[in-house]
Amino acid sequence: MKKSFFPTYSRRLFSAFVVPLLCIVSHTRAQSVVHYADPLIGSEGGGHVFVGACLPFGMVKLGPDMVGHSNSGYRSDSPIEGLSHTHVSGTGGGAKYGNISVMPASGSIDLTDYTSGWNNEKNTPGYFSVQLDKPKVQAELTATHSVGFHRYTFEGNSGHILIEAGHFLFTGSEYGHGPFGEAQQLVGSEIKVLSNTQAEGYVRVRGGWNYGEAYTVYFYAQLNQPASAVGTWKGTEKHAGNRLEYDTGEKTGAWFSFSALKQKQVMVKVGISFVSTNKAKANLQKEINHWDFDKIKTKAEVTWNDALSRIIIEGKKSLKTIFYTGLYHSMLMPVDRTGENPLWKSDKAYYDDYYAIWDTFRTTNPLLLLIMQDRHIAMLESLLDIYKHEGYMPDARSGNSNGRTQGGSNCDILFAEAFLKELEGLDYQLALEAMLKNAEVPPGGNEQQAGRGGLRDYNSIGYVSYDFERSGSRTMEYANCDYAIATLAEGLGKKQIAETYYSKSSNWKNLWRDDYEDRDTKGFIYPRLANGDWIPEYDFMEYGYWPVKFYEGRSWNYSFYVPHDVRALVDRSGGKDLFLKRLDTFFAEGLYDVGNEPDFLTPAWYSYVGEYPQTAQRTHAIMKDNFTTMRDGLPGNDDSGAMSSWYIFHAMGFYPVAGQDVYLVTSPLITHAVMDIGPDKKLEIEVKNASAKNMYVTSMTINGEVWEKAWFQHKDIAQGGKITFTMGSKPSDWGKSIVPPSNSDRQ
Amino acid sequence: MKKSFFPTYSRRLFSAFVVPLLCIVSHTRAQSVVHYADPLIGSEGGGHVFVGACLPFGMVKLGPDMVGHSNSGYRSDSPIEGLSHTHVSGTGGGAKYGNISVMPASGSIDLTDYTSGWNNEKNTPGYFSVQLDKPKVQAELTATHSVGFHRYTFEGNSGHILIEAGHFLFTGSEYGHGPFGEAQQLVGSEIKVLSNTQAEGYVRVRGGWNYGEAYTVYFYAQLNQPASAVGTWKGTEKHAGNRLEYDTGEKTGAWFSFSALKQKQVMVKVGISFVSTNKAKANLQKEINHWDFDKIKTKAEVTWNDALSRIIIEGKKSLKTIFYTGLYHSMLMPVDRTGENPLWKSDKAYYDDYYAIWDTFRTTNPLLLLIMQDRHIAMLESLLDIYKHEGYMPDARSGNSNGRTQGGSNCDILFAEAFLKELEGLDYQLALEAMLKNAEVPPGGNEQQAGRGGLRDYNSIGYVSYDFERSGSRTMEYANCDYAIATLAEGLGKKQIAETYYSKSSNWKNLWRDDYEDRDTKGFIYPRLANGDWIPEYDFMEYGYWPVKFYEGRSWNYSFYVPHDVRALVDRSGGKDLFLKRLDTFFAEGLYDVGNEPDFLTPAWYSYVGEYPQTAQRTHAIMKDNFTTMRDGLPGNDDSGAMSSWYIFHAMGFYPVAGQDVYLVTSPLITHAVMDIGPDKKLEIEVKNASAKNMYVTSMTINGEVWEKAWFQHKDIAQGGKITFTMGSKPSDWGKSIVPPSNSDRQ
Repeated sequence: MKKSFFPTYSRRLFSAFVVPLLCIVSHTRAQSVVHYADPLIGSEGGGHVFVGACLPFGMVKLGPDMVGHSNSGYRSDSPIEGLSHTHVSGTGGGAKYGNISVMPASGSIDLTDYTSGWNNEKNTPGYFSVQLDKPKVQAELTATHSVGFHRYTFEGNSGHILIEAGHFLFTGSEYGHGPFGEAQQLVGSEIKVLSNTQAEGYVRVRGGWNYGEAYTVYFYAQLNQPASAVGTWKGTEKHAGNRLEYDTGEKTGAWFSFSALKQKQVMVKVGISFVSTNKAKANLQKEINHWDFDKIKTKAEVTWNDALSRIIIEGKKSLKTIFYTGLYHSMLMPVDRTGENPLWKSDKAYYDDYYAIWDTFRTTNPLLLLIMQDRHIAMLESLLDIYKHEGYMPDARSGNSNGRTQGGSNCDILFAEAFLKELEGLDYQLALEAMLKNAEVPPGGNEQQAGRGGLRDYNSIGYVSYDFERSGSRTMEYANCDYAIATLAEGLGKKQIAETYYSKSSNWKNLWRDDYEDRDTKGFIYPRLANGDWIPEYDFMEYGYWPVKFYEGRSWNYSFYVPHDVRALVDRSGGKDLFLKRLDTFFAEGLYDVGNEPDFLTPAWYSYVGEYPQTAQRTHAIMKDNFTTMRDGLPGNDDSGAMSSWYIFHAMGFYPVAGQDVYLVTSPLITHAVMDIGPDKKLEIEVKNASAKNMYVTSMTINGEVWEKAWFQHKDIAQGGKITFTMGSKPSDWGKSIVPPSNSDRQ
Repeated sequence: MKKSFFPTYSRRLFSAFVVPLLCIVSHTRAQSVVHYADPLIGSEGGGHVFVGACLPFGMVKLGPDMVGHSNSGYRSDSPIEGLSHTHVSGTGGGAKYGNISVMPASGSIDLTDYTSGWNNEKNTPGYFSVQLDKPKVQAELTATHSVGFHRYTFEGNSGHILIEAGHFLFTGSEYGHGPFGEAQQLVGSEIKVLSNTQAEGYVRVRGGWNYGEAYTVYFYAQLNQPASAVGTWKGTEKHAGNRLEYDTGEKTGAWFSFSALKQKQVMVKVGISFVSTNKAKANLQKEINHWDFDKIKTKAEVTWNDALSRIIIEGKKSLKTIFYTGLYHSMLMPVDRTGENPLWKSDKAYYDDYYAIWDTFRTTNPLLLLIMQDRHIAMLESLLDIYKHEGYMPDARSGNSNGRTQGGSNCDILFAEAFLKELEGLDYQLALEAMLKNAEVPPGGNEQQAGRGGLRDYNSIGYVSYDFERSGSRTMEYANCDYAIATLAEGLGKKQIAETYYSKSSNWKNLWRDDYEDRDTKGFIYPRLANGDWIPEYDFMEYGYWPVKFYEGRSWNYSFYVPHDVRALVDRSGGKDLFLKRLDTFFAEGLYDVGNEPDFLTPAWYSYVGEYPQTAQRTHAIMKDNFTTMRDGLPGNDDSGAMSSWYIFHAMGFYPVAGQDVYLVTSPLITHAVMDIGPDKKLEIEVKNASAKNMYVTSMTINGEVWEKAWFQHKDIAQGGKITFTMGSKPSDWGKSIVPPSNSDRQ
């Protein structure tokens, strides 16, 4: 049964492809899906996705940086100033990275402006190209894990290649706290021209959204043909013929000039390292020992296809495009920097750019857990290793620095979920220790760096008081994180700890103000003073980021945020009818924010009161209305794939309740899917009667068993097998009788 | 008047010198005193002073590392394993630094043992030499600020120079917390042989006493003659002929072999940097552009003489030896690393290796404030710059990392004192902000890194409860630091803050247990639970370091530690007579620890109850009994000169009450002194009737004014002038009538 669908599927896909992609299908499993992924979706609007070339979780993310900068480097509305090697994807706040930039130039080198207009950009997984107009050059980029490969095809016979060691993205100085805001600050840079075809150097930068300490990106660059002249610069001073600019805290760069190009294609390979220039060179030599750009480009495509084909779906082309683009965007970060940790030596994997777990724990991580266990285990190991060496697991981390924690200590949720889903090979005892540190040792003045701010209150009076910013949202998240601690502790046989934390997971109730009314709805999470008084009347619709009562949301949003005990939440909201009314008001009044993480789960809350059809209806509409194949096709920051993964799950018809072993059935858009969920384990999803208007699951089986619940557990599908959804155009009674579990069920 | 003594003094000193030192006296001010300093005093016993060659506050501290290691690298009881470039001086706990080691060798290179027996070591300021016996080589070292200069005179005609990039000192794994204890851990190292006379590379190390994050020491080395063969190693694997070992997390090194030495003297110059190898090379080229070892040696001597002659004393030769050695040891740390900060860019000075301010705020800092204002201002600026970029000023810092705070936030005291002593050019508003951060924002889980641990208690119940370790000593130090905050706030016109902190400075009373009795003495600082109960009976003589009630002391020691309000302390102790009895018991029962900082002030407490003669007697005896010209001539860890500076002040007849503008008159050992206390400001001290038995000041004048108090303020001498002490062999009534100020006097 499991295998029968496969040849058919395989044939169908193959017929859609022509010769060039045949080489990609190097083993029997891989299907050609890579061409569906369009990295430019989400590049405009609020998506902030990375545009450029990289491998899955690759250290090098080589892409264009436009004048004015942005979080991803890319902007559609301004000239290109360089093509740099390190980026993040989908983030908000101040920009990070944008290091070691390469740019073609012509004529006399003008350090005050070597930007270029551009057009006709193309981006596929592992490949980016763009036509520059000053000089007229086609710029093409591809990458291996640690190496950026540039191919510049000059129209003229002469030109230069500029390498700006000191480049970095600069946005965010206007917001955040401290004298530098959230902007990156240069610490120093260095460049050394080793020969007329080689250079090495580094840039050292601090700051950015996470207020990170200094990180250093080292490089070693190699050109395919010798320059006729070289020179260097520091600041705005050019030094023709010079070959070294050592670090005096300035921006530095070097040029390689070609008076008569032997080949029109000037190629540059740039090895990157966070350890040293020699390590960068070793990385280059190990990963690319030739000048065959197309070979590397193809290899990157194959690698991406291999990763993306962990899920093979059927459905409309636009669906596939959104789906595989989302999958692609879910595999950009965190970055695998094993062997590149300049902070300590370890036999564990090292991942950086958790940016942020506050986002990804909800969707990206459950997705990777499902389809890439080895990767996910390695990431979780790296989090424990960070704890071991730095004292706290991160809630966000970038540039080798923890920071900054937006709310809860959401690593807690990752480990509880991994345990419940029986991920093997992790040191769960150590995880519990690290989680208890989060829950019990206040990070004090470093509360944006790690742990839980306002813990003094939370652990003494049961909520974060108004003495601390983000007191409302923090309390809600801490309660959910405490539930994660309780479940892991229980699983490890630590009953006392489990009871303590199950009890603390009800702390959200301490901020529930029964008598507060808004929009005919009564009972809300409400900020409270340390003495127990509610805070004086305030603008209930206030919305903001750091110095607020609720982070990236309002009381309305967080008054739904009790994923571990929706039953209790329903009770507190006045029972099923009032809860449904609350949900309806929430959506009707535009208080729901599809593009932001705190609301990710809310559209599925209907299922917890036995109204699965409304869950289906809501989630179906959200997918249809907010995700497109356009460049602004994402409804909010992609946040390291958190937004994209939200779609991927829902499109497959189920959605994880992070930290639990529960998936809620929603409304599949696909007609069929096969997922690799482990060695020799495949999960097939068949959607019967699929059509645009058939948005309701009306019956379902798992491995042949008739399934009456609009939810299932990871263990129900952990060994693979088949889920069959049968769809209908009208709500039915299916899925209404047994609601998903809540902590209150335990009592 | 001010100038009259000078020519006489100068002539007398000159006559004691012969030709080689004449060249040192390059300007009129300098007197030749450098030869009195003996860096080997304190090298045995508990002194832990640095042995080797360096400049005042120099980045390079080039000295021998012996097998088994030690805090300073040096040990008298084991073979030399290398001569490395970075060290600290006088510290306890786990060792730090010991980076980039050079060692001569002969025969076949044995990586498992290239140590050598040694004898006949010599150490003068800026110069170290030792005779090695395997191979037979005379090793000589001198240094500039950033460069180590090695001269190896081989007896044979062949040999090798080994450069171990990966070297570091390793002690302390057995104590401290966490999996690595207080020991340093290798992160990685790299070496590249650039030619047969050049190499570069780095070592990256973390940990050590302060649990520091990774720091990187880069080097560039140059040899005076080309090797006939080179090779490298990684771990224990030798790679003959190889020229690069890139960083894979192992120890690396390189050898330079000389089959037929052209010159018997193989010289090596090693530039050091904390930024990059190219910066290390630039440092080398800037500081030493020749091969004249003796010229650099002489320059170092001149520099040291210039620094040491800030105070010219007269007295017995042994006194001068102890005195100038102490002055030398007070000018080793912190290290001036301006231009070498890899963490941020700034126009402020950058000093590292505050190791620790907990020690030096008491003596070294007041000394530098007195005789080297520019240096002291730069150091304080660097502390503010650390606050600005990292969020907290350090109480200790090494390897570019704050940590670890032993008790109070003693930077507070430095700034209050600087303000009171009218040190200009500092941003005192920023200082107050940083001090209030210490006092008000708990560092939480990072409480050993910065700020004040247990602040939750201290700011709510008025003392650090037994929930926190070191609760007794922390409370006492916080109260003293709060006094510092109050005085600065008052000076800046912030009355409300001043009143709050004057009030908090009485918090020590909250731990005073009136009914506790020991050794016929009643009333002690006693650990208390958060609920207000005294802790159950415990071993009152318990002594220890981190997980204790009192840090490096006992209740006895800290029950005297109220420097800002001795009057209140006397009252609480039952009045003058009982306080005197308490002091007598303290000394008689051996509870006083001359070698440790918490007791530094106690011997002078007699003056606060009008018993100056007993202050004189005690301090005189302590100097005589505990400081010698022997190698074990220091009574405890020198702690970055804190111990030495204690002696220097007392030997001059006065001692600072840190954080206040008060100096207590004690018992001068010198017969005469002239101090440079600022541009064109000299303070002369004349001691009349000086003799071994005349230990009591019986009368005194300041600038001709008859002085009845056994204390004076900085403003009394800030413009220079002359103090005259007249000595007698018997206690008199001089100095008894007006006791030094206490906070209680304000009321």
